[in-house]
Amino acid sequence: MVNWNNLDTLASYQELLKAERVDLKAVMSGENGAERVKRYSVPMAEGMVYNYAAKAVDDAVLEKLGKLAEEAQLAEKFEELYNGAVINTGEKRLVLHHLTRGQLGKTVEADGVDKRAFYVAQQQKIAEFAGKVHAGKITNAAGERFTTVVQIGIGGSDLGPRAIYLALENWARKHDTLKMEAKFISNVDPDDAAAVLNSIDVAHSIFVLVSKSGTTLETLTNESFVKDALKNAGLDASRHMVAVTSETSPLAKSADYLEAFFMDDYIGGRYSSSSAVGGAVLSLAFGPEVFAQFLEGAAEEDKLAMNKDMLQNPAMLDALIGVYERNVLDYPSTAVLPYSQALSRFPAHLQQLDMESNGKSVNRFGERVGYQTGPVIFGEPGTNGQHSFYQLLHQGTAIVPLQFIGYRNSQLDTDVVIQGSTSQQKLCANVAAQIVAFACGKEDENRNKYFEGGRPSSIIIGDQVNPKSVGALLSHFENKVMFQGFVWNVNSFDQEGVQLGKILAKRVLAHETDGALKEYSDLLNI
Amino acid sequence: MVNWNNLDTLASYQELLKAERVDLKAVMSGENGAERVKRYSVPMAEGMVYNYAAKAVDDAVLEKLGKLAEEAQLAEKFEELYNGAVINTGEKRLVLHHLTRGQLGKTVEADGVDKRAFYVAQQQKIAEFAGKVHAGKITNAAGERFTTVVQIGIGGSDLGPRAIYLALENWARKHDTLKMEAKFISNVDPDDAAAVLNSIDVAHSIFVLVSKSGTTLETLTNESFVKDALKNAGLDASRHMVAVTSETSPLAKSADYLEAFFMDDYIGGRYSSSSAVGGAVLSLAFGPEVFAQFLEGAAEEDKLAMNKDMLQNPAMLDALIGVYERNVLDYPSTAVLPYSQALSRFPAHLQQLDMESNGKSVNRFGERVGYQTGPVIFGEPGTNGQHSFYQLLHQGTAIVPLQFIGYRNSQLDTDVVIQGSTSQQKLCANVAAQIVAFACGKEDENRNKYFEGGRPSSIIIGDQVNPKSVGALLSHFENKVMFQGFVWNVNSFDQEGVQLGKILAKRVLAHETDGALKEYSDLLNI
Repeated sequence: MVNWNNLDTLASYQELLKAERVDLKAVMSGENGAERVKRYSVPMAEGMVYNYAAKAVDDAVLEKLGKLAEEAQLAEKFEELYNGAVINTGEKRLVLHHLTRGQLGKTVEADGVDKRAFYVAQQQKIAEFAGKVHAGKITNAAGERFTTVVQIGIGGSDLGPRAIYLALENWARKHDTLKMEAKFISNVDPDDAAAVLNSIDVAHSIFVLVSKSGTTLETLTNESFVKDALKNAGLDASRHMVAVTSETSPLAKSADYLEAFFMDDYIGGRYSSSSAVGGAVLSLAFGPEVFAQFLEGAAEEDKLAMNKDMLQNPAMLDALIGVYERNVLDYPSTAVLPYSQALSRFPAHLQQLDMESNGKSVNRFGERVGYQTGPVIFGEPGTNGQHSFYQLLHQGTAIVPLQFIGYRNSQLDTDVVIQGSTSQQKLCANVAAQIVAFACGKEDENRNKYFEGGRPSSIIIGDQVNPKSVGALLSHFENKVMFQGFVWNVNSFDQEGVQLGKILAKRVLAHETDGALKEYSDLLNI
Repeated sequence: MVNWNNLDTLASYQELLKAERVDLKAVMSGENGAERVKRYSVPMAEGMVYNYAAKAVDDAVLEKLGKLAEEAQLAEKFEELYNGAVINTGEKRLVLHHLTRGQLGKTVEADGVDKRAFYVAQQQKIAEFAGKVHAGKITNAAGERFTTVVQIGIGGSDLGPRAIYLALENWARKHDTLKMEAKFISNVDPDDAAAVLNSIDVAHSIFVLVSKSGTTLETLTNESFVKDALKNAGLDASRHMVAVTSETSPLAKSADYLEAFFMDDYIGGRYSSSSAVGGAVLSLAFGPEVFAQFLEGAAEEDKLAMNKDMLQNPAMLDALIGVYERNVLDYPSTAVLPYSQALSRFPAHLQQLDMESNGKSVNRFGERVGYQTGPVIFGEPGTNGQHSFYQLLHQGTAIVPLQFIGYRNSQLDTDVVIQGSTSQQKLCANVAAQIVAFACGKEDENRNKYFEGGRPSSIIIGDQVNPKSVGALLSHFENKVMFQGFVWNVNSFDQEGVQLGKILAKRVLAHETDGALKEYSDLLNI
């Protein structure tokens, strides 16, 4: 039986507050620093490692974090989750995204079916559909093959699938498995849909409409936009569209779609990349085998998250170090910095994943908590970020913890040697250099050139951005966020904070406004 | 004569700390809220307004902010700057980016020339070059026209020009003035250059190499990458490349380039969008007339920044409200939220502009300051962000001040009516709704559905994202950041914080490492 308690009621947390602070600059200098890099490293799936040598922790702090993990029953809570408990208490729902990529525990039955079997069946259905599209068995009315797939969705139906598509597009090109180019329409701004439609050949495009409820206003608006474009081109829209939705949504059995693939209420939008939401567009773009590899990587990483020993559980360890930074060291934000252009939109996905899950002020029982929860998450790829906001990270008045991600090899394997090194070597040299620069700083009599150091970071190192490693990376962060939600005792799986804006926007459109809202509406000519 | 004093030595700042806090929720409710929206609005260039009704200020706070603006001599400092004082004290340089778009004060002479005339001459040279390219007078060796322009640059040579290109690409398409498609190569990650080169027809591409010093490693590496590609395609690289650099750089008079356009040490990278750095790529992409309109918009907004009355000076007012939020209300970050897909990368540019300028811990005299300086800046376009990180903004434990940007009209003017309103109306309704939702919140017995409100925002409202309004928007934020730097008494125009990483990266590449740095290098197989 697990107990859901607030962080500040836990004895181990009070211990942690009293733990002696680590002087990161001191411990990362000299041979001691080298020792830390060797010791403070834990294997992830696909040969990756999570290295936390440059975090402001030592064995004493880690021991207390381990006790906190135990007292907060993190492993047990995860077990409850994957065995089908109602973890999303606000909406009274199970939380089953792990089942889209593997069976971690008991068979989970809901709605009268084995949910793992249900998700596998959807993937199978998608794989068959994608196979027919790629083989030219499903074509447009003129019998011509589809060359482009366009995802229409917003939030979790957009950010994760888009980030993963961009992560693997060039890998797929290199491995001759880019079956169709993918595009994404998300914003209700009409210029978004119009620009995407201008950039494609609609006659050879297949559109994937993604909305769990079938009622997301942005998505339905953009669907209508697309249907107009298809009609104007003299095409039959129903031959160009598929739906990803829940079985109970109005889209599920509509003749407007070539096919419908199902998700359900147990998969939150931001956790839906490994469900049909990511599956349809990614299987069409890369082939179902590539999507299957992505799922394998995620499943392998999920298994590591089951480990009760925090030091052998990279997601749990990352989560607890994050809690230490947020609640003990009082750092309000975290930067995610992948040294890979392929991961250019991965920080935007993590931003949703983390901030929408744990940006909460009330616990699972609706009581206000007396401590900080989720941090602000932002980031851009390195080395670009180095020439942008790193100035503040190095010398600003506030400390921002950093999450680096680096890979030994490029995707396209085209490179150039300048000044005795390849671009890939320069990329890797930069991330290594940054970790040490942030941790150790540099003395200088000129205070303007002085780096105080003591700025914590961790790094995930892998061989290459490929389907399995991207799956593992996604799983790592999903599970990290989940564990942090357990520690903070919040419900990481609802998002009531998005509702008020929707209600007021409807009121504006109905011209039922007064006070400030009316004035703003007038200023914007609505 | 101006005095450069630390913020915490100013009497008006001490007054400000004692000012009564404004209950934003209370003042924004009912008719009082409507009154605020009408009153707390100041005109910007191009018919735009800066509206700060939903900021946690009132007449009493504003009066104290006005006194602070006077005591800190913001208008006088700006005057010194545009009249050519050595404002960048660390590097002993003038700060002249305003001169790229207008003459605000006296003639500024440096390096023996009138600098305004120098920048105008460069723009003229670019305009002539672009005109010849567009007219087919400058072609590839086969006599064929160039169709694509590729900017090679990083940091300020990338983020601003890229954000502005994306902002205006569809506007230009709609107005039949998209002369060439633009692409950007920035990251030293070899997959960045390789992917861009795979996506274009190099034989019909012209490359703009941007490096002030001519020594930026990432940029020279990517230049080499591009030259290899041109050679492999049997092309003469020197017929495909132009340089934007300083007159003293090794690139200035090289036979490797068709032409060289000049900037100088008085234009910081992040302030260089209106110099030849933005000028070359944007004039080639859109035509020099469009770039001239962009400069006009910026010049018009610059003039507003000269106003000594804070309440009539949108950049100064925005700056001071930001200081109030950072130093009095203690908010560590700010989100920039444009309700326009065209501005999708504008937040990334502002992130550099702001964090690299004011992410400093020492004042202009190299003394550590005892107060917070520049905040973390992040953002994504709405409505996308609403389905992502807005959960935390509405219901998280920490308050994040918000900067909305909204436009009455779309760029492409293609729209669809769903549920009685256009997409553009929905877009505008959402931003209006969000401001009020953040400020006023919503009572609910269920604490999970309760919105405490009191979350401050401002909004810049314009008619449309077009060349003039983008120029004005850029100028607004450049001047805001400048004024904040004056208040914090930091040098906003150097970036010593980026140096240490470069030095250590070189050491890694030379295999001159020990301790932690050697271990990280080994882990990354360098």
